[in-house]
Amino acid sequence: MDERELSFWGWGYADKFPDDEERRELAARIEGSLGFPERPLLDPPEIESVSVPEPRLAVPEELAGFCTTAKRARVGHTYGKSYRDLVRGFHGDFSAAPDVVARPADESDVEALLAWAAAACVAVVPFGGGTSVVGGVEGDLGDPGNGAGIEVTNGDGAGDVGGVGDDGDGGGDGSDGAARRAAYGGVVSLDTRELDRVLKVDSRSRTARIQAGALGPEIRDQLAEHGLQLRHYPQSYEFSTLGGWIATRAGGHFATRYTHIDDFVENVRMITPEGPFETRRLPASGAGPDPNRLVLGSEGTLGVITEAWLRVQPRPGHRSRATLRFASFEEGVAATREVVQARLSPANCRLLDANEAMLNEIAFDGSSVLLLGFESFDHPVESELDRAIEIGESHGGELSEGPAHEQPDGAEDEGDDTAGDEGRDGDESTDDGRTDDRRVDDGDEAAEGEERDGSETDDWRSSFFEAPYRYNALVSIGVMADTFETAVTWDRFFDLHEAIQESVGGTMQEVCGAGFLSCRFTHVYPDGPAPYYTLLAPVEPGRELEQWRAVKQAASDTLIEHGATITHHHAVGRVHREHYGQEAPAGFREGFRELKSTYDPAGIMNPGVLIE
Amino acid sequence: MDERELSFWGWGYADKFPDDEERRELAARIEGSLGFPERPLLDPPEIESVSVPEPRLAVPEELAGFCTTAKRARVGHTYGKSYRDLVRGFHGDFSAAPDVVARPADESDVEALLAWAAAACVAVVPFGGGTSVVGGVEGDLGDPGNGAGIEVTNGDGAGDVGGVGDDGDGGGDGSDGAARRAAYGGVVSLDTRELDRVLKVDSRSRTARIQAGALGPEIRDQLAEHGLQLRHYPQSYEFSTLGGWIATRAGGHFATRYTHIDDFVENVRMITPEGPFETRRLPASGAGPDPNRLVLGSEGTLGVITEAWLRVQPRPGHRSRATLRFASFEEGVAATREVVQARLSPANCRLLDANEAMLNEIAFDGSSVLLLGFESFDHPVESELDRAIEIGESHGGELSEGPAHEQPDGAEDEGDDTAGDEGRDGDESTDDGRTDDRRVDDGDEAAEGEERDGSETDDWRSSFFEAPYRYNALVSIGVMADTFETAVTWDRFFDLHEAIQESVGGTMQEVCGAGFLSCRFTHVYPDGPAPYYTLLAPVEPGRELEQWRAVKQAASDTLIEHGATITHHHAVGRVHREHYGQEAPAGFREGFRELKSTYDPAGIMNPGVLIE
Repeated sequence: MDERELSFWGWGYADKFPDDEERRELAARIEGSLGFPERPLLDPPEIESVSVPEPRLAVPEELAGFCTTAKRARVGHTYGKSYRDLVRGFHGDFSAAPDVVARPADESDVEALLAWAAAACVAVVPFGGGTSVVGGVEGDLGDPGNGAGIEVTNGDGAGDVGGVGDDGDGGGDGSDGAARRAAYGGVVSLDTRELDRVLKVDSRSRTARIQAGALGPEIRDQLAEHGLQLRHYPQSYEFSTLGGWIATRAGGHFATRYTHIDDFVENVRMITPEGPFETRRLPASGAGPDPNRLVLGSEGTLGVITEAWLRVQPRPGHRSRATLRFASFEEGVAATREVVQARLSPANCRLLDANEAMLNEIAFDGSSVLLLGFESFDHPVESELDRAIEIGESHGGELSEGPAHEQPDGAEDEGDDTAGDEGRDGDESTDDGRTDDRRVDDGDEAAEGEERDGSETDDWRSSFFEAPYRYNALVSIGVMADTFETAVTWDRFFDLHEAIQESVGGTMQEVCGAGFLSCRFTHVYPDGPAPYYTLLAPVEPGRELEQWRAVKQAASDTLIEHGATITHHHAVGRVHREHYGQEAPAGFREGFRELKSTYDPAGIMNPGVLIE
Repeated sequence: MDERELSFWGWGYADKFPDDEERRELAARIEGSLGFPERPLLDPPEIESVSVPEPRLAVPEELAGFCTTAKRARVGHTYGKSYRDLVRGFHGDFSAAPDVVARPADESDVEALLAWAAAACVAVVPFGGGTSVVGGVEGDLGDPGNGAGIEVTNGDGAGDVGGVGDDGDGGGDGSDGAARRAAYGGVVSLDTRELDRVLKVDSRSRTARIQAGALGPEIRDQLAEHGLQLRHYPQSYEFSTLGGWIATRAGGHFATRYTHIDDFVENVRMITPEGPFETRRLPASGAGPDPNRLVLGSEGTLGVITEAWLRVQPRPGHRSRATLRFASFEEGVAATREVVQARLSPANCRLLDANEAMLNEIAFDGSSVLLLGFESFDHPVESELDRAIEIGESHGGELSEGPAHEQPDGAEDEGDDTAGDEGRDGDESTDDGRTDDRRVDDGDEAAEGEERDGSETDDWRSSFFEAPYRYNALVSIGVMADTFETAVTWDRFFDLHEAIQESVGGTMQEVCGAGFLSCRFTHVYPDGPAPYYTLLAPVEPGRELEQWRAVKQAASDTLIEHGATITHHHAVGRVHREHYGQEAPAGFREGFRELKSTYDPAGIMNPGVLIE
């Protein structure tokens, strides 16, 4: 993928940005279907007209071989990929660019860089694929809304970090935080992408030792040589790394039984400013608090994750899927709850409300849609699907037309072909559906489950992996496009859902004059769902971040007030820090800060993330 | 159970200690079958002849209502239930008795006690059911082998804790530890048993809010009123508490999919010396490192767990079970690995080596035995069992005779009756096998899965829950009887297993002149098993602890050297502290100590456990 240029301001490949005609069509569609006022066609930025501040740092000669201050590298490491990031990038604001981008080739490079940074009091921001949507990879310690850079000293270690706002998203325990905060001589973005190898496969234990900078497809391709898969597919899969998944507790699909990357991590290795930290490779342990769980979710504040042993599995040759429609969302919720509480463990169990079904072009009649999929590499899974359908029907669900259920997976042969949907599955129906090494997945593999849920869902695959691209276009036509996600117990879900409609819907109306909000369950658990909300609203160029902040604040406040979590899998970063402070148990962040000081006494690791 | 007197020195009810004739028979059987020399018949201790030191503390009047210095209470809170504890108790050595036993009635009592203890520098040892086998509930900060009490000051807060040995099990980072160690004015054992209520059931989310001092059967009985079960059955089930399970990351049966209590904990509430700590009630979250995982495994070092929301479920009416025999252990291991890697998720998947099968009177012909059980409250599970049997047979396994497989569970009716085995299941076959509230479990419920694995396994139930009783008798006839357990990846298992035979077997021969060692897998994971070893050896009265220490040291050293964990579910306590230090990642214990200081700045909470 190095040959194909990545967008310097938006999601994914640069050449996928739509031309003016396509954007005009998109605008017209949105104006028509969502009732938004006429949208402008804004010109995307050009790299030539973008400027970055002079680097405030010079790295020592021994580090220079893997460090750069080149503008393109710094621009590409300024932001993650949230709506807020896209807006800032689209407007060509890269004032918060890191001073240096380091791309270590191995752990000793990482160690050398951290040693120098700790001594020089330079902030180090680990950067994997750079797909954070919570301000997790930016060197901006200030107000997450205003794009101000760190106000730095001259590297003498004295002074304080300025520019820290106290608005809703950025602030928190200001006075205490200010006293604790160190001064930084600058910011290094530490890019882990050189560490992209599957180092070892233990086929007996079904585990693989993988470097943290490997992207989803790189892991897939290397494991395929051994007939194995990780089967962890976050939406950012194509452009995000194993280390990022671990640092942020990424959520994957296919997933009701194995949801977060947490479930796959057998061991993890991290370079901290005080040296290597490595957990023992174990299937399980009861020895003290789980040290893997300290690294999972630490978001780069303790060190740089360099590799991990992951639990892998053969490719599932047995699959069965179905799509059910419900006249009401409430019925769909009841069915989903019963399916997951029956512990049927579908690989895919995704409920879309009417707006979400419309957005994904699956249903336009006000139906809610439940996508169900089961899979196993070992044994047929039709009976599980049959039982799930039975449950769905008992709640008023109607099996959708299409081949999904009529042609479920064969027990041994024909594998997972439900046929018909653009013929993309034909190349996989030639062997016995078990663990054939020749069955190397193509790039479509990750979305197969969704893609085949029924003939009417042929847009679901693109909805899933292409959705982030659509955000590039939306930003360019003055549409706020953001998502937020949570998890909550079943007894609180409907209250939360109603409150979200009111607060987020109301705020969009108030601040933007219109708004669209949809909901799907990306993951479900016996004790509650993980609802994922998508919002669209017309914004005024130049006022986007102010308008976004109001909507984001309403969403986050409502989640916390209603007993939900501020994030199920997007992480905390800088954007969710204040609300995370309200969610975390009393003293937890203080305790974590004390613990962090053991590994990072100079406080250089990703300052501003999780804690002040 | 309060009406029935508990043994003051051994496991369980006092009246279950066998009489001389039974003990003579046991000795004869062991001498005969294991080739041990003639065993003595030692007189068990009597409470009247036991003495405890004068209490070194007087609690303030406002705490007196729930505190006692009565001898019987102090004796009963001196030790856990390990072999080492039984030996010390058997010899009437209660010199390490806590000064005070507190039995708070509510959280405000706990808060008041901790406030006083922190100010007076009194060590507080949380005590649930007192079933620790790792020195987790004793107020003895000294050499875990010698039973020496804490050498305390006069409560003035100065001075140092003496009596800390540096032998294999107790020591570690001596000099550093000594410098950090606070001085204690005495020890309070904080018994949580008054907090024994199921406070609330949320049937929609299938969760229950339960107080931490509730014993297994108390939880069972209260949940049964709602037609629900926790289905977490540690071997100590009858006498251990929810809070203890959480603090030590207890392992339960039935369990391959849900193994540790960790999997059931939705939220946890703990009173620390600095105030309440409560995690948010959530089905899942990606917000920072999981705070539940900080409490899970903290072993009382941060505070007193008072309650938790647990994931519960209806009683499984669908069950299927089978027993397979293998001519070799290696074949049994291969079959077990394939079953669990096929992700069939048996509720029970327990492999016994030939010695273990003999010890449990299941097989005497050198066979290894695999017990398999599947269960669901929602749907039939015969096909899973069929597939598991197929895998087992492909590795040379032979289905045992008996009704287990010939009469698998009916789909809807007749529930889980495999009939025949003492008729104990007859009273449960009258309804539809689903969630009938009338189907309140009796005390046998917890062991049903084992009990019904085949007609020849009618001793398995008693093996599981009665085994700890047998240890009382063994101590009284000069037999060392201990267990240790671990988890390791599949690729390392056979090397470990061989090394354990050599080191532990060899040490028993060397130190005791004879020895018996058996192994079973209590839990299995796709990436490795959790082997559980039982050892028996003849010991010399008076030298038991010295001999035990040598064997224990050999076992623990071998686990750590071979990449295994020092404990899969017995916890760390004081006994495993040194080896835990070798297993934990660099800096982890130091970091944890820093974190602990946030919640327990005076260092009064269970000092000596996990960390120095």
